[in-house]
Amino acid sequence: MMIQYNPLDTCKSFKHLAELPRVDIAEAINVDRIQKYSIRGREGFDFIYAAAPVDDAILEALQALADEQQLVDKYKALASGETMNTGERRMVLHHLARGELAGSVLCNGENLLSFYEDEREKAAAFATDVHEGKILGSTGKPFTTAVQIGIGGSDLGPRAAYIALERWARAENRQKMKACFISNVDPDDAENTLRNIDLETSLFILVSKSGTTQETLANETLVRNRLESAGIDSSRHMIAVTSKTSPLAQNPNYLASFFIDDFIGGRYSTSSAVGGVVLSLAFGPGTFEEFLAGAHRADLAAMEPRVAKNSALLDAMIGVYERNILGYQTTAILPYAEPLSRFPAHLQQLDMESNGKSVDRFGMPLSYKTGPVVFGEPGTNGQHSFYQLLHQGTDIIPLQFIGFLKNQNSGDAMSMGTTSRQKLVANLLAQMVAFARGKADSNPNKRFAGGRPSTLLLGSRLEPAQLGSLFSHYENKVMFQGFAWNINSFDQEGVQLGKILAGKVLSIMQGEKTDDKVLEAMTSLASSGRQA
Amino acid sequence: MMIQYNPLDTCKSFKHLAELPRVDIAEAINVDRIQKYSIRGREGFDFIYAAAPVDDAILEALQALADEQQLVDKYKALASGETMNTGERRMVLHHLARGELAGSVLCNGENLLSFYEDEREKAAAFATDVHEGKILGSTGKPFTTAVQIGIGGSDLGPRAAYIALERWARAENRQKMKACFISNVDPDDAENTLRNIDLETSLFILVSKSGTTQETLANETLVRNRLESAGIDSSRHMIAVTSKTSPLAQNPNYLASFFIDDFIGGRYSTSSAVGGVVLSLAFGPGTFEEFLAGAHRADLAAMEPRVAKNSALLDAMIGVYERNILGYQTTAILPYAEPLSRFPAHLQQLDMESNGKSVDRFGMPLSYKTGPVVFGEPGTNGQHSFYQLLHQGTDIIPLQFIGFLKNQNSGDAMSMGTTSRQKLVANLLAQMVAFARGKADSNPNKRFAGGRPSTLLLGSRLEPAQLGSLFSHYENKVMFQGFAWNINSFDQEGVQLGKILAGKVLSIMQGEKTDDKVLEAMTSLASSGRQA
Repeated sequence: MMIQYNPLDTCKSFKHLAELPRVDIAEAINVDRIQKYSIRGREGFDFIYAAAPVDDAILEALQALADEQQLVDKYKALASGETMNTGERRMVLHHLARGELAGSVLCNGENLLSFYEDEREKAAAFATDVHEGKILGSTGKPFTTAVQIGIGGSDLGPRAAYIALERWARAENRQKMKACFISNVDPDDAENTLRNIDLETSLFILVSKSGTTQETLANETLVRNRLESAGIDSSRHMIAVTSKTSPLAQNPNYLASFFIDDFIGGRYSTSSAVGGVVLSLAFGPGTFEEFLAGAHRADLAAMEPRVAKNSALLDAMIGVYERNILGYQTTAILPYAEPLSRFPAHLQQLDMESNGKSVDRFGMPLSYKTGPVVFGEPGTNGQHSFYQLLHQGTDIIPLQFIGFLKNQNSGDAMSMGTTSRQKLVANLLAQMVAFARGKADSNPNKRFAGGRPSTLLLGSRLEPAQLGSLFSHYENKVMFQGFAWNINSFDQEGVQLGKILAGKVLSIMQGEKTDDKVLEAMTSLASSGRQA
Repeated sequence: MMIQYNPLDTCKSFKHLAELPRVDIAEAINVDRIQKYSIRGREGFDFIYAAAPVDDAILEALQALADEQQLVDKYKALASGETMNTGERRMVLHHLARGELAGSVLCNGENLLSFYEDEREKAAAFATDVHEGKILGSTGKPFTTAVQIGIGGSDLGPRAAYIALERWARAENRQKMKACFISNVDPDDAENTLRNIDLETSLFILVSKSGTTQETLANETLVRNRLESAGIDSSRHMIAVTSKTSPLAQNPNYLASFFIDDFIGGRYSTSSAVGGVVLSLAFGPGTFEEFLAGAHRADLAAMEPRVAKNSALLDAMIGVYERNILGYQTTAILPYAEPLSRFPAHLQQLDMESNGKSVDRFGMPLSYKTGPVVFGEPGTNGQHSFYQLLHQGTDIIPLQFIGFLKNQNSGDAMSMGTTSRQKLVANLLAQMVAFARGKADSNPNKRFAGGRPSTLLLGSRLEPAQLGSLFSHYENKVMFQGFAWNINSFDQEGVQLGKILAGKVLSIMQGEKTDDKVLEAMTSLASSGRQA
């Protein structure tokens, strides 16, 4: 079937969607919707949209829009290896790192599924050797700590995943090594990590696709200096995750190197060696395989063309409706799970870097809004913080809740007749109703307008497979929205300008003259010595 | 002078402000502005607004608005003990915890400055006894770890402050004890903390003004169970920070209690015993005194009526201009300092809980926007994440940068001819120019529209006094904005409804019948057993 790429606002179904009556969720929320508006997920999550600002007519229109924009067909085309990253003229293959969806994908005759699998096996074998003490530090001690040095996608996704599974791994005796992360070029970041670990038993994972990331190389230097001054052979304590063509590949300064390619963008790379090496070292290769299996199941579920059966697709379409018809500018991600404390930071990159664009995939300026601002903190903490604005502020912020029915750890306690887990889940469910329904009150200060929409991803327990499915859900949601907006969700030209100007400021700091008086004046602000 | 309270949009100066020509910062940014549009802070920070969307005419109008809304007079009235928390009919005295600004404040004949000082001295003496081993755990061991159990303002501010100073304290040999925090009712939060500490040498600080906070009491039970089952006398390992009238006060289950009152709201309470006990235990009472001194200096500087000399006031007015005239909905806080990694989370509560309101201080509905959504992550990490949307997205997000010229730790490294600190500062300054100026390009994908406004708080080194001044800057900014919007920034009725409904869901979970079918249906979602 012929695939066409059209702006959202030229779609017949989009115009129809705009004409449909709005849903006042404060009025609409009822038992029938709660029972009906839910997708029982094959991939471990139920997607509950009873409190979303939709009804049967709008859902039908969203289906028509998904069909008219050929969202699932474009997903299949992407999975089959079409050049979906139009800006950089690259395929987009993070799904393939979890399994084949649409036949084999070749590059210069090489089957890329095998490439990803081979690198995964290399990482698994390496991790096993480390765990079995076959690979030791330069002073003869076994490695107990893995330290990932990377920034952006080499940090946020893997770190969020590690934090999400650390408690589970301890409860299940799956923890093989501790992991920590150095990302910021701020030397106070690396310093703090290095003071908290034993260098002799630490293995550093340098992660940079290009092998030229300024922050990561600066932190590598800082770490190598520390290792050498501690009498440790840094080349035996450092491995690289990079592309085959990078200066870090096959380089004697690294104990081993594991390869990624240009077809998996940083923010989509947790399923590749970028996440795989550190997660396999920390929790064992089997745990990482479970993560990938869960992600692959969610990828398969996202192939379903009916919005009412495909949570990633419906989540995406509700987001487009909220953004382009209702005009909401921000989305809050509210995981009622402390282990997901850094998951919103990963989603900020995934969503905002993918869909924060003003031109379509052909470079034409857009006449409609694209990606929203995404922010969030775990519940119930957020309830005692920014929820005031969400409930009674002057803007409506759509909410996405994430929750689980069981603990990762065994430990819990009864107080006031219920467990902490029950209190956590009760607060989540109560908040959805409170935001939707609001409350009348004679005191205007205690009045809640309601009509504040939300959806819920409800899982059983945060385990590797469920976490993989959660990563996949959002990757696919973002992809579908990018297709709906007709943009390229897979490049990030917006980060280049700052890099270039930072280079100029650094040369000014080193005394070079430039023709940029504004940059020179800005730079002088930093040198005009301030007193505390 | 007679103080009057009027809606923002009834101000003559506001109407004038709306009529002034807008500033295109892409055009306006130049050397002259960079040199002129900066406030040399007496309190340790320079406030640089060269890239803010203002010019001399707009600044004059902002001054007129600040005068017409009597912002500094209202601040003085607040400091002198007027009932500024109109909703709860309370005084607002967090400034007094740092020193007197407008004469002594009495409550039932008691001088509250002395009350705050006495509690601080009690905490200092207690901390010193702990450090000197005069107070030991129930098994005879000295305390090495302080664990704060609290949520919202009892967690976010103190935690952000602890993380901000931990590296500094280590570098300066000021660290007396390790501190960690338990906040979320999710039992996986407490479990994780408890597994990482030695219970015998841990002192738990229970922080709840009312002594009835559900999450905090649930975590107390969980912790006490663990202590008792480890054969530790929990009453000798737990202290309380609470109000004199709370069930936790003068209670034999606590080794000691330290008091706060109703005149310091949770999100403003880091300067009180809520922050003082844990910070004095962790870094010594002298460090906390330095924090308060820095905050007090900033409070005094905020008394200055000229916007061009008062960074908190000007920051507030620029925010009002961006929110109510330019219509921007979100603000990003971008600290180029890894130690401030949790500071944006504190600001989310401070700003969004204070000013996320839809009625004025008399309960009348507002006809204009109030507090924005606040979010942020440390730079340079954010550059590799959500900056794509900030640079090229379809909405303009005003930015506030925070930076420092020196490291907390001594450790740094040269790479590519510069230190990591230089790279960090260079990136910060370069980003301000990149956002403001943008860049033309024949490839629309590489085009930057520019015109994205920002301001910068630039300090010398993140030390206790500078941190105190930073806390104060934002507290006063938020206060001034609340006065400008004519709202009560000191209550939080918006958090109540969720609490009430959560209680009902918990009774439904315990089998009680209710008349609320929607809540019952929501609750059944959690019990309909899901498979991973």
